[in-house]
Amino acid sequence: MSDTAPIYTKITIVGAGLIGSSVARAARHYGAADHIAIADANEDVLAEAKSLGIADSYSPSIPVAVADADMVLMAVPVGAMASVAAAAAPALKPGATVSDVGSVKSSVLSAVKPILPDTIHLIPGHPVAGTEQSGPAAGFATLFDGRWCILTPPEDADPEALNALAAFWSRLGSTVEQMTADHHDLVLAITSHVPHLIAYNIVGTANDLETVTRSEVIKYSAGGFRDFTRIAASDPTMWRDVFLNNKEAVLEMLGRFNEDLTALQRAIRWGDGDALFDLFTRTRDIRRRIIDAGQDEDEVDFGRPHEE
Amino acid sequence: MSDTAPIYTKITIVGAGLIGSSVARAARHYGAADHIAIADANEDVLAEAKSLGIADSYSPSIPVAVADADMVLMAVPVGAMASVAAAAAPALKPGATVSDVGSVKSSVLSAVKPILPDTIHLIPGHPVAGTEQSGPAAGFATLFDGRWCILTPPEDADPEALNALAAFWSRLGSTVEQMTADHHDLVLAITSHVPHLIAYNIVGTANDLETVTRSEVIKYSAGGFRDFTRIAASDPTMWRDVFLNNKEAVLEMLGRFNEDLTALQRAIRWGDGDALFDLFTRTRDIRRRIIDAGQDEDEVDFGRPHEE
Repeated sequence: MSDTAPIYTKITIVGAGLIGSSVARAARHYGAADHIAIADANEDVLAEAKSLGIADSYSPSIPVAVADADMVLMAVPVGAMASVAAAAAPALKPGATVSDVGSVKSSVLSAVKPILPDTIHLIPGHPVAGTEQSGPAAGFATLFDGRWCILTPPEDADPEALNALAAFWSRLGSTVEQMTADHHDLVLAITSHVPHLIAYNIVGTANDLETVTRSEVIKYSAGGFRDFTRIAASDPTMWRDVFLNNKEAVLEMLGRFNEDLTALQRAIRWGDGDALFDLFTRTRDIRRRIIDAGQDEDEVDFGRPHEE
Repeated sequence: MSDTAPIYTKITIVGAGLIGSSVARAARHYGAADHIAIADANEDVLAEAKSLGIADSYSPSIPVAVADADMVLMAVPVGAMASVAAAAAPALKPGATVSDVGSVKSSVLSAVKPILPDTIHLIPGHPVAGTEQSGPAAGFATLFDGRWCILTPPEDADPEALNALAAFWSRLGSTVEQMTADHHDLVLAITSHVPHLIAYNIVGTANDLETVTRSEVIKYSAGGFRDFTRIAASDPTMWRDVFLNNKEAVLEMLGRFNEDLTALQRAIRWGDGDALFDLFTRTRDIRRRIIDAGQDEDEVDFGRPHEE
């Protein structure tokens, strides 16, 4: 396959939120598909996507939108994947690929697999990218540049369909990785799900104090708290579904987080400065390695402007 | 006092790290003092500060550096404040002001107060500003612009000395607030100390997993984890001292954080999506209010570049 030829003749993106609208923009920007169709049951969202002109066709009907599609990408909250698949199933073209962008993979595989005809290639995926914003207007074509896209194909996945989907994400600028759905869910529990949970949690805790006013929390948030408010501003429906659908892995990682935090709490109570200093020294190195790996910018304070 | 005349004839900054070197740069940049002296017992740090030319005089000796100073600013880890005060005490000019930049105030007040002569005005302070970097080269003149500086004067503080110190921080671009040392320590426990503790903690937890490799944690850190690594890269000595010296307030806030996290954990285990959705919706508003208050930038994903 040449590296400029479209990967698919027609793709249909179901869900025009941050990720779906970004995929549409990126697919057009990089010429990954001849025709980009968008389906969204929410008429306001669909109208907004249409007014932004990010696709070639738009429909509130999933069966209408997926007709003739070579690849259907479900870009909806994890809890909605099954109903989207059920609506699409009767209208899918035999041999078409169905994928998704959900942050949880095992539950999607088990919920969607039985719904789809055997003639359909189901290959779940997850582009590890995003921002704290939501909706069609929040998307942009370069969201996936330099990010990782994880595919979790079933063992019997069709090699050709798998290669095409991998080529699609590569064209959008991502590096494609493959792993089992279970391992994906464990990796994301620690790199994404639990971090979001504790960010939501501390913002909630600060919000509910009586001894410290909310305006004090906001005024002095530059002390560190403000960093957590960014991901705690992420889409509530998407994140509710993530936690409901990746229960085991999240509870497992949360258990370890709690054990470690209890040890730190004890070190503070008993004045064990060495234990604190030891941890605070070990953690410093990871930041450097993330920057060296190109997964964050090497800018002080996230590059927040400090000039007048 | 005119708003261009120097606030002090001579100031001495003890400790040439991120904060001390930034105060030196800012004091010169805004003309807040005629003479800026720097003392640092670490010869390498002192030599680096000297090579950067950020002050008017440099000395490894605290008594030498504080002689004739109208204001002495202790910019060292909280645990080192008492020894700095003890070294300075005999050489302090009667009527001079001694202040600090520590993130904990009650312990500084009780540790330093008995050491200083009655002729000295002790007015603890805390500029709520900083970055994850350390050392003289990490400082910059605009670090305090638009940030808050909290002063925690004793009830019998000299009004003139207090006004001068407040004017000094205002000149550096900060908005000055006054509160009791105890209340400061409670406010910072939730806006700064506990956020740092849980960031250090999750980075440590991720670092120690067997089921997920360190390279996977780094590769997929864009899922949210990378945000926490920034403050988990902060100076280990400074933060060890913060937790050892603000034990009660940190344990109190940590207790509330743990209660709330346990409730979330239970909601996940029992599939209580409404409880999760409710919290995730409430927390969204705080981000907006912090941005409206000018305490963070209104840039998606902290303004991380998403263009090629």
